[in-house]
Amino acid sequence: MAGKSSSNTAGKPIQCRAAIARKAGDPLVIEDVIVAPPKSYEVRIKIICTSLCHTDVTFWKLEQTPAIFPIIFGHEAVGVVESVGEGVHEVVEGDTVIPTFLPDCGECTDCLSDKSNLCSKFPFRPSFGMERDDTSRFTDINGETVNHFLFVSSFSEYTVVDIVHVTKIDPAIPANRACLLSCGVSTGVGAAWKTAKVEAGTTVAIFGLGAIGLAVAEGARLCGAKRIIGIDVNQDKCEIGKKFGVTDFVNSRNIGDKSVSQIIIEMSDGGADYCFECAGLTSLVHEAYASCRKGWGKTVMVGIDHPGAMLNISSFDILYSGKTLMGSFFGGLKPKSDIQILEKRYLDKELQLDEFITHEVDFEDINKAFDLLLEGKSLRCVICMNK
Amino acid sequence: MAGKSSSNTAGKPIQCRAAIARKAGDPLVIEDVIVAPPKSYEVRIKIICTSLCHTDVTFWKLEQTPAIFPIIFGHEAVGVVESVGEGVHEVVEGDTVIPTFLPDCGECTDCLSDKSNLCSKFPFRPSFGMERDDTSRFTDINGETVNHFLFVSSFSEYTVVDIVHVTKIDPAIPANRACLLSCGVSTGVGAAWKTAKVEAGTTVAIFGLGAIGLAVAEGARLCGAKRIIGIDVNQDKCEIGKKFGVTDFVNSRNIGDKSVSQIIIEMSDGGADYCFECAGLTSLVHEAYASCRKGWGKTVMVGIDHPGAMLNISSFDILYSGKTLMGSFFGGLKPKSDIQILEKRYLDKELQLDEFITHEVDFEDINKAFDLLLEGKSLRCVICMNK
Repeated sequence: MAGKSSSNTAGKPIQCRAAIARKAGDPLVIEDVIVAPPKSYEVRIKIICTSLCHTDVTFWKLEQTPAIFPIIFGHEAVGVVESVGEGVHEVVEGDTVIPTFLPDCGECTDCLSDKSNLCSKFPFRPSFGMERDDTSRFTDINGETVNHFLFVSSFSEYTVVDIVHVTKIDPAIPANRACLLSCGVSTGVGAAWKTAKVEAGTTVAIFGLGAIGLAVAEGARLCGAKRIIGIDVNQDKCEIGKKFGVTDFVNSRNIGDKSVSQIIIEMSDGGADYCFECAGLTSLVHEAYASCRKGWGKTVMVGIDHPGAMLNISSFDILYSGKTLMGSFFGGLKPKSDIQILEKRYLDKELQLDEFITHEVDFEDINKAFDLLLEGKSLRCVICMNK
Repeated sequence: MAGKSSSNTAGKPIQCRAAIARKAGDPLVIEDVIVAPPKSYEVRIKIICTSLCHTDVTFWKLEQTPAIFPIIFGHEAVGVVESVGEGVHEVVEGDTVIPTFLPDCGECTDCLSDKSNLCSKFPFRPSFGMERDDTSRFTDINGETVNHFLFVSSFSEYTVVDIVHVTKIDPAIPANRACLLSCGVSTGVGAAWKTAKVEAGTTVAIFGLGAIGLAVAEGARLCGAKRIIGIDVNQDKCEIGKKFGVTDFVNSRNIGDKSVSQIIIEMSDGGADYCFECAGLTSLVHEAYASCRKGWGKTVMVGIDHPGAMLNISSFDILYSGKTLMGSFFGGLKPKSDIQILEKRYLDKELQLDEFITHEVDFEDINKAFDLLLEGKSLRCVICMNK
């Protein structure tokens, strides 16, 4: 049985449009690609909406290893199942799904534990192909292989994703909102909710108010944090932050001779209960660590620095502080269960998603999404495949 | 009112014997000292038993700043209140007490919180005098000031300690056992119990099986850990460890080309749930961090390295691992409440203390205790003041 779908495209290659990155930093080119049918445990998805995340831009700009071209970027999306490969029982044709870069096999020790979101059957690793065989399902019209990105490649009308990277969701949520749960917003909200387990009435400091940092604020707000201090170099973030529960803003360019940690410690009578580094600068982790409350403060790394970045921290500072240092990958969320919880909280009007969407463009205008993010003008730009 | 005691020494200086360190590394000299009466909020204690901790030896060997001489070392002890200064209501003459280097004011945010053991009214700091005025209560017979150590100075028949460093205990516990709760054993047991919160059925790895590491094992055993892996360069620790619940021993000198973390990961099917660095080597913290289970592993620093030691750790390793790094100071214990709990567990025959005591000497032979520890022959040597 080569797939369970009754769609008339099932089992056959699909020719469709994709935005291909052919060279580092060059505008994406919308071309026709051939999308092979899903192999065993794979799902072919018709993408409805996708949004642009910083990680796409980071890899798009990358000229050296692990850069690879041509490639189809995009890893925040929502779509509808077109057909499924052998062994896929979890979703069927027509299901609304969110692809995620993080796998969730549902069977391994980690996926069965409520303490981990790092699947051990399919450990996260760099690959530019599919999860199980590292090969591609994309070829261009000249027959050349086009690479996958983060197991998703949503800048294409159709893509193939392994079932461990697919989460079924309630189609009640608008597609141009749902796609945000695929990576960025979930990562930030989860960092506060699942990784740090922010308690009600506490003080939170967030270093960097990009979409991830603001999502941390949103998560902290939902957890009942009393005070949410946002730190950024961009004064505009002061107003933007308020939408997500940021109660106090520190422009780190306007603090004179003081360090950010001095300011935070003064503001919060000894330090924040939780500090989140969301700018992807390891150097800021020190400042975040210094800003959190001795005795119980938690510092959570959320931002991704370059691969070789090292954190240098005094062993005495760790020993004598009572502080905790932890990382948050995909916000500590389990894709297949926690995304559904966030979706429900959106539908219940608790979790804000609309406020993250600053722009929406048609697929043809995908390069505008890149420009807006590079210019710092957008939080999230949603790209609609068929408007 | 200059003290509430009815003892006939109250309010007067006491001349008694103390073991004074006059020069770095030189044997202590038992001399007569004058111990001033306690000032406000201070307690004069007649020491019954004291034991030797590595920190005493570290400072005794220290030739440069913050070394200071002459000084009376000793910070693990038990004694009886001889008299109290003004404002002391918590203990009275005749009470059995344990002095601790860590203060517990019972009033500040930290002392009132169940999350912290780092008093903010009296933040721990280097001082060679009393807590409130940094002056000494000791003078030698030539009238020269003798310094205090860690707010305790128990290598003296009488000492003066601030009430925030004094914990009243049940005199039912033998003095030559109780003194161990003053620092080392409490630190190790607390690191497992309070800092890491070891869960039943889990796997623990302990780097360094000195008294502190063995106390971590004891704490992990009490918490119901299923497997306790001890790592040391001394093969004798294999047998010694068994007394404290160590189920598996790794001699890190006999593992060929493998790293300790490779061994631990293989032994524990992916890594230990909790790793404790108890050797005071920051370099071992990396190995401990690498040895703990991705997804949820906790690495706890317990050992004290030299003040400038830096931990260099890849920011990616923190971000992608789901692991937590934390320090444990005095085992995360609150002196005034948690020592009493440990005492009760000893009296209930749950917590082992006797097994830590390898030697017992008279006060006159205090230098033997130093020799035994330096030769690696003792875990704890108890020094009895009046045998």
